[in-house]
Parts: sequence; structure tokens; C-alpha cells
Amino acid sequence: MPKISNRGIVMPASPIRKLVPYAESAKQRGVKVYHLNIGQPDIKTPEVALNAIRTANLSVIEYSHSAGNESYRRKLAASYNAIGMDVDYSDILITTGGSEAFVFAFMSCLDPGDEVIIPEPFYANYNAFAVMAGIQVRTLVSTIEDGFALPPIEAFEKLITPRTRGVVICNPNNPTGYLYSAEEMQKLEALVKKHDLFLFSDEVYREFCYDGQAHISAMSLKDISQHVIMIDSVSKRYSECGVRIGAMVTKNKRVVEAALKFGQSRLSPPSFGQIAAEASLDTPMDYFKEVYDEYLARRNFLLEGLNKIPGVYSPMPKGAFYTVARLPVDDSEKFCQWILSDFSYQGQTVMMAPASGFYSQPGLGVNEVRIAYVLNRTDLANALVVLEKALEAYPGRTI
Amino acid sequence: MPKISNRGIVMPASPIRKLVPYAESAKQRGVKVYHLNIGQPDIKTPEVALNAIRTANLSVIEYSHSAGNESYRRKLAASYNAIGMDVDYSDILITTGGSEAFVFAFMSCLDPGDEVIIPEPFYANYNAFAVMAGIQVRTLVSTIEDGFALPPIEAFEKLITPRTRGVVICNPNNPTGYLYSAEEMQKLEALVKKHDLFLFSDEVYREFCYDGQAHISAMSLKDISQHVIMIDSVSKRYSECGVRIGAMVTKNKRVVEAALKFGQSRLSPPSFGQIAAEASLDTPMDYFKEVYDEYLARRNFLLEGLNKIPGVYSPMPKGAFYTVARLPVDDSEKFCQWILSDFSYQGQTVMMAPASGFYSQPGLGVNEVRIAYVLNRTDLANALVVLEKALEAYPGRTI
Repeated sequence: MPKISNRGIVMPASPIRKLVPYAESAKQRGVKVYHLNIGQPDIKTPEVALNAIRTANLSVIEYSHSAGNESYRRKLAASYNAIGMDVDYSDILITTGGSEAFVFAFMSCLDPGDEVIIPEPFYANYNAFAVMAGIQVRTLVSTIEDGFALPPIEAFEKLITPRTRGVVICNPNNPTGYLYSAEEMQKLEALVKKHDLFLFSDEVYREFCYDGQAHISAMSLKDISQHVIMIDSVSKRYSECGVRIGAMVTKNKRVVEAALKFGQSRLSPPSFGQIAAEASLDTPMDYFKEVYDEYLARRNFLLEGLNKIPGVYSPMPKGAFYTVARLPVDDSEKFCQWILSDFSYQGQTVMMAPASGFYSQPGLGVNEVRIAYVLNRTDLANALVVLEKALEAYPGRTI
Repeated sequence: MPKISNRGIVMPASPIRKLVPYAESAKQRGVKVYHLNIGQPDIKTPEVALNAIRTANLSVIEYSHSAGNESYRRKLAASYNAIGMDVDYSDILITTGGSEAFVFAFMSCLDPGDEVIIPEPFYANYNAFAVMAGIQVRTLVSTIEDGFALPPIEAFEKLITPRTRGVVICNPNNPTGYLYSAEEMQKLEALVKKHDLFLFSDEVYREFCYDGQAHISAMSLKDISQHVIMIDSVSKRYSECGVRIGAMVTKNKRVVEAALKFGQSRLSPPSFGQIAAEASLDTPMDYFKEVYDEYLARRNFLLEGLNKIPGVYSPMPKGAFYTVARLPVDDSEKFCQWILSDFSYQGQTVMMAPASGFYSQPGLGVNEVRIAYVLNRTDLANALVVLEKALEAYPGRTI
């Protein structure tokens, strides 16, 4: 039997993969599991998107342009322009989700063995995209004590080697919910320019910024317009994760040209997804207001509840719909498994993502979990009660 | 400005990319262009698929399982069973088109620097997938004189090095239309077993086999069931290229497990595409009969017409909907450009794919073109007249 590849072995599995059988088993025992572990919102997809799919009058479902339908790219560019971003439709490559945008961006900009620097904790799939592209991830720590703010620039500079070609940020951040300030973005701009790096900026949660703090897009950093690759996705914006439509956006024409060749090799992004995504650009403003208000209320409710539980601490996330909380436990991987396999309260339990899966340095995040507030407040309230009761009962409680 | 990657530079562009501006320009001059260059059929998508999309009653377009919806995988496995293939639903990973299946298969089975052997001419995007996976493609020639039959096994063995990990076939073949015989498949089986290789078998044109010759799937080669990775796609079977649904199928559980990790990193294949693909499995048999008869009639019509043109030769393709024809020209790249830029007959011209794009060794296929018979017979008849007149007028005619 031929051996599989080494990269097939080292390829990281999803951080919650080990927990899935325990969640299944809990459900089989009749226990209700609140899923705080995933980024699948319960929010409805805009009606304009669903309608566009229902009424699409196709007789042959053809390939689209490899860069995505021009009508969609033009309308998407106009939507960026409307929020002050200088984007032409030719700066956009429509991709199969933000995931493909990352893979194309890494492959177009970096060669195998090249390095990117990422503040951790970070979205675990960046590791997977790095394995696919054969590049190395070097990390520096943003801490819960600092609310997961940008680490000092000197810490970045310490990691720079001759192979360093880029910095990756997620803003607002998954998993921490941190939103970079204008000052932090300016520091990144100077760093990127000084060392002639690419800045890969994942901005898929752009609409979810709270407390009046503005989102500063990397696309607005004029000094490094040739360095910035913005990653975008419609998944969370319109609660349409399943359409698999994202975008790679950059003013750097050589990167667009290279990425288009990767795009041509897979022929085109999904046709129905593009129809839904293009129609979604006509989503009425009250949809966003309603969704925004809902997430804001959930965040406030969740954070107040979390910080009231003895021994639990979470900084206030300023964006997205995640937070990383510190729990009074010996090992959050063990706790997240135990709460599924050995615990229930009034027939309910909770699934959370151990934060260690979002760090690459061993030992980090060992008592932290990522919680997604993608459930309604009634469910969140129940989940908080379960968590509190579980922490009281957990044998590995530390304080 | 940071430099793009070397792989972004060497990444091959689509073989017809250079011709696109000439085709656009011809259309702007009012010339009708018959597209014999692409694999986008004009055949209608089955009504059951379109209906399933129209009536899908979703309120949130959620992520699906990373391996694809279980209902779809089970039904797809049953459809394989019905044609005698031993496939369980757990052997299947639903992918975003056959393209993603190839990338996941290469990355799961091979490491950077490893080699695959491919008889040429071959589907040009295999080169692109190889660049993405960082693997090397070694080729041996199947010739138009032999009707593009499998080259002798000794020719494969001459190419084997310590880094050789697999053989890639496309059966029936794009671009040649060749269909491997039972004897050829047995020879491949012995080769693969002897050298402990993977066999990547692209079988997306399986339904299109003519003249009573049976399709022998690599999945039926019992001696190498742990070596075979079948690549599949719904694009051509149901004329639904735009749904972007394919599959990677193998009995090798370690490969499935590794590929699933790549699949988890991009979360899920497209939801609407899966709905269409699953519904397509209920396509009535008369649809296939109609489509099959249509392609068969087109093939016969095209091949008779081609071989009547003085100086033109094409072997009879036994499957798919392509053929590679030899033309009496100095250089088919020049001819394919000239026919778009400098020629028209009664306001019409033809776009074809120069076959050199399907060979990797320089100088091969220089007087060959790939012709896709994806147009109706009236259009094919007109295209044949245009081709004959163009060959009469072309300054670089050789005989």
C-alpha cells in the first residue's frame, strides 16, 4: 500500500474535531447541546438572496468567468467604494469562500519555505492554508491581559528573517473579537513598508464592530497599497456560509494576474453562490441594523454573564461574534470534553472550542476557550447556567 | 513593492488565454465565432436539478459537512454501486469540482518534489494542480498515429525514479477522446502494483463511451484498490459545470482521512451545488439517452467532416466530447490566432484550442488542435466549412 504524504499527516485537523464524537454521544443520550463552538450563525439569510436563487431562470448551469461574474465584481467594487475603499472591479478575484482567497493569495505571493508572521491566537485554518502553500507560520503572542491588542512592533521585528514575506491579521479578530485601532494599523503599515512585506488582511467580520470604534481597513493604508491583500467573504455578512463565495482584493496587479491563473485552473467559483452574493448587495439596511443590534445585545449579555461566573474572565470583544474567555480549569481541552461526556445540567450541556487550537506555541491558551455568540439570548442564558454549574462540578477546577 | 512568488510566475495560464482577446476582437467586428475550444456543453441541465434549487426551502444557507452532505454521499455511493463499483459513502469526499478533488488528492498522497507520470497530451490543468501541490509532472507521448492509445508500459518504467509516487490518467480522455481498453487497464494495474504507486483516475466523462466499448473504471481494479484515487465531477454528466461539485473517491482510508483535513480547512463544498447534484441522481434515463445520442451524432458528423477536409486527420474518439485533429499548418497556435484575427467566411470564424497547450514537451502537437463537439450539428456544419475555407487561405499551410 503506498504511503500517504507527510503533509497529509501534519495537516492540522479542526480544533474541535476531537470533541465531535463526545457531542454526538451526548445528543444520543438525549442531552441538549448548545453549540458555542462554531461560527455558523442562526441569523436568517437575506430574503433578496434566497429569492434570487429561487427565480434564477437558468437552463444550463454554465461555468462563470474564472475571476467571477463581471456584474458581481462591478457591484461589489461599488459597495467597497461606498464605504470609502478605493477598489476597482479589476482588483477583485471572486473566490470559493475566503478560504480559497487565502490559498490563492499565499500561493501567488509566497514560495514554499517563505514565512508569514501572525499574532496568536489566530483562526486555526491559517495553519492549514500554510501547509497547503508549503509556507511557515511564525507567531507572537497577544495576551488576554492586554485584551488581545496588537503585540509591540519590536516583537514582530524580532521574528523577521530573510524568508519573511508577510504579516497576516484578522480584523475584527476571530477568535478574540479584537478590533485594531487606527494607531495599531499605522504601526503595521510602517512595519510592512519598512521590510517590504505583504499584509494579508482578513476582514470578513468588517460589519461587526461595536462601541462606536471604526473599522480601519488595510485597503485604506495608502502607503502600502501594493502590499495589501484583503480577504473577504459573504459568509458572515449575510449569514450565507454555504454559498462559498469570498474575494481576494488587491491593488497589486501582478498579484491579481498570478492569482487569476490559480483561479483559471479551477475554472470558476460557484454559479448559484455568485447569484446569491450579488443579490445580497441589495439587502435592505434594516436587515443589517437588526442583525447588528442582535449581535450587540448577545455580546453584552454573554460578556456580562461570563464575567459574573466566579473565576471566569473575558475581555470585552469589540467586533466579530467571538470571545476568548479564561476559565478556572486545569486544561480547557479536558474540560470541553468532560462537559460533553460526563456532565449535564437539567438535560443540557455546552460545546466550546478549546483555545489551545488557536495557538501554535504549546502550553498557550491552556485555560482559555473560544465562545461564539451565534445563538439567541434564551439559549445563551441557558448555556451560561450550564457553564457555571459545570465549573462548580469539574474535578480539574483550579481556583 | 514586494515581489510575487516564483510559482505565481511559472503557474501555467489557460492554453486558450492568449486567443481570448482575438476572439473578442472578432466579435466586435461583427464576426460570429463558433466556440470549439471549450468544454462548456450547450446541453440543458436536467429539470430535476433546476427544480431542486428553485424549491429548496432554506432560511439560512449553512455550511454543510466538510465531506459533503451525508444524504448526497449515500445516494452517490448507491449510484456507483448500481454500475458495479464497490464504493461506500465513507469512501467519498465531495469536493468543489473535480479540480479541488485533484488538489486534495495530490496533496494527501504526494509531498513537494514527488513525481507523477502522465501520458500526454493531457488536460492542461493537471500542470496547474501540480504547481499548487509542488509536485513534478513527467510525461510520455501517446501519438495521433496510434489513436492516442496507452504508451507501452516500458516507456512508463523508463520514467520511474525514487520520487515517482503516481500515475495520472483521464479515461475517457480529455483532450483526445481515447478510451482505455480492459487490457490497457490491466497493464496499468500491474505497473501500479509493481512500483507501489497511486493511480489518479479522472473519470468525469464516464457516461460518454461510444461504439459499444465498455468503460473500465480504475475502481474495478481489485488488486490495487488501496492505490486508486478516482476523480469525479457532475459538470459534464448533467451539464451543470457551474455548480462546482466533484468528488474524490478511494478505498484507501488513510487518504480519505488526510483529504478530509484539507476539506475541513475550506469548511464545506457549495450548498446549492450539492442540492443540484443530489437531485441530478434522479435524472430520468431518457435524458441520458437523448444527450448520449446527441453527442454520438455530433461526433460522427464532426469526424466525418474533419477527415474529408484535405490534409486534415483525426482518429475516431471513443469517448468524452473532444478530439485532437492534425491540420496541414505550420503552427496551430499561429493558425488558431490567424483564423480569429485575419480570417472570416461569410461573417463567421472558429475558435479552437491549439494542442501544444496539452503537451509539456516543446514541439509536440505543433500542428494539432483540440476540438470540442459541444455545439449542435448546424453550428458544427458551419464551423467545418469555415475551417476548410480557412485552411485553403492560410499562408502557413504545409501540404
